[in-house]
Amino acid sequence: MKIVRTVAALRAELREARAVRPAATVGLVPTMGALHEGHLSLVRAARRNDDVVVMSIFVNPTQFTEAADLAAYPRQEAGDTALAERAGVDLLFAPEAAEMYREGHATGVHVEGPLTATLEGAVRGSAHFDGMATIVTKLLLAALPDAAYFGEKDAQQLRVVRRMVADLGIPTRIVGCPTSRDDDGLARSSRNVRLSPEERSRALAIPRALEAIASAALLGETRTAELFARGEEILIASGVSAEYLAFVDPDSFAPRERLDGPVLCAVAARVGEVRLIDNVLLGAGATADSDAETIPRTPTKEP
Amino acid sequence: MKIVRTVAALRAELREARAVRPAATVGLVPTMGALHEGHLSLVRAARRNDDVVVMSIFVNPTQFTEAADLAAYPRQEAGDTALAERAGVDLLFAPEAAEMYREGHATGVHVEGPLTATLEGAVRGSAHFDGMATIVTKLLLAALPDAAYFGEKDAQQLRVVRRMVADLGIPTRIVGCPTSRDDDGLARSSRNVRLSPEERSRALAIPRALEAIASAALLGETRTAELFARGEEILIASGVSAEYLAFVDPDSFAPRERLDGPVLCAVAARVGEVRLIDNVLLGAGATADSDAETIPRTPTKEP
Repeated sequence: MKIVRTVAALRAELREARAVRPAATVGLVPTMGALHEGHLSLVRAARRNDDVVVMSIFVNPTQFTEAADLAAYPRQEAGDTALAERAGVDLLFAPEAAEMYREGHATGVHVEGPLTATLEGAVRGSAHFDGMATIVTKLLLAALPDAAYFGEKDAQQLRVVRRMVADLGIPTRIVGCPTSRDDDGLARSSRNVRLSPEERSRALAIPRALEAIASAALLGETRTAELFARGEEILIASGVSAEYLAFVDPDSFAPRERLDGPVLCAVAARVGEVRLIDNVLLGAGATADSDAETIPRTPTKEP
Repeated sequence: MKIVRTVAALRAELREARAVRPAATVGLVPTMGALHEGHLSLVRAARRNDDVVVMSIFVNPTQFTEAADLAAYPRQEAGDTALAERAGVDLLFAPEAAEMYREGHATGVHVEGPLTATLEGAVRGSAHFDGMATIVTKLLLAALPDAAYFGEKDAQQLRVVRRMVADLGIPTRIVGCPTSRDDDGLARSSRNVRLSPEERSRALAIPRALEAIASAALLGETRTAELFARGEEILIASGVSAEYLAFVDPDSFAPRERLDGPVLCAVAARVGEVRLIDNVLLGAGATADSDAETIPRTPTKEP
């Protein structure tokens, strides 16, 4: 595995790889490091689909809307490097902030409307998705990958990325991958390491609430107010207070009152100092990838 | 010359061209149609540098901040097609608005700071440069050209494009081309056809004012307030009232009081119903292209 620190070096490596194998496809796994099994499942998906697997590790300061959250975000590059290499990453792009935001940087990518105004956008502020959309655009344009892999745990982020990639016409296929969970059901997140044992035990109310909601939906409950009550009860019983427990259209993120089609149930809660998010897709035949973009491969390559 | 109407068709044509000649470079000339000699000079520059010359014609509604200006903007596709073909365009991309802004489009590119807040940004409103930056990003990502050609008449637009391309890492070289002028000195613009003979005669005060300013600067005047007075006198004598006559840093567009380095003198004025802009670069050894981006060619291609 090669490690590169600049966009120019990343492009030079990819140019070389494509010169050797003109038909080689490139898959990008963008991460903020602190790798866990969830990230590695994205790498395995890329490994299955693409010839060259690139991982980026960049803790993007502009998408953090709380200085404390940015400061506390776990960083462990040596461990990450070993994990990435073992999982099959060919090329690791790990730039400094000064490389991604050169002096005078003034350009942002903004996705407007309910998709970015609600849930994470409402709680974390509009700067969160603006920062995320901008850095993902930059990473995609740096590598120009055939495909990029994102976890469905960050469902709203995935939807914003799909919207932005389609709107700007970035020639990359966006692939959503199922949320990776620990054996106890907790969605894997880099922030989980900051949970105390007691907090972690309480945090399990989050997947349990989502499971209860999914079960009730399977048994025929279609009123989201009823489903909300089931979930909230479980959270409250564990002393977990949700920032939101919401039922939204998985495409527009507009609120939904009935399961008359696929509905995304998304939750965010603080357990101690740690903010956790999770979600489950409800509705028969629902698939989070139903809106997967089918943009053809980059026009400069031949199949 | 081929004419295509969709991004998919544009990409298919370019894919084919690159398959036949893998080392072929692509030059893009983005226009809003109503072609004149200024546009054709951009085509000739592209023809000299690149193997495949693409012109886009798209009257982008989102960058017009006045409905009347959008409605009055000249459209003449048949004539444009003939001119483009004669000038050496290989591929004309002429999409409808519905192709560039699909249903649900919600993404914008924004360049912040004085560069977009001043002059054209101040007069036309922030939507102007947002709309321009977004459509230029989309056009560049649609064609992924090696180079794109812009006129220096729209100096602030050119600077915003350079900023945005550098910040987002769009792998295209931005080439600024000298303002094209009629024999009487008036900068060529699609809007000039709307001037009555009397208005056109008065409009010549604009290049005359810039010439007087440039002459005074060459003769040693370094105070921009003095230069402003010279120019304003000429405009007023012709009954032309400037929206702005400004002296700014050609990089940051911050106001400048002295010619202690390159200074851009930019002017905007309405003559009758028609809004005209023009500019001249002052300062020894000044070159508008001093900050030309030297981003390497798209990583998927080999020299």
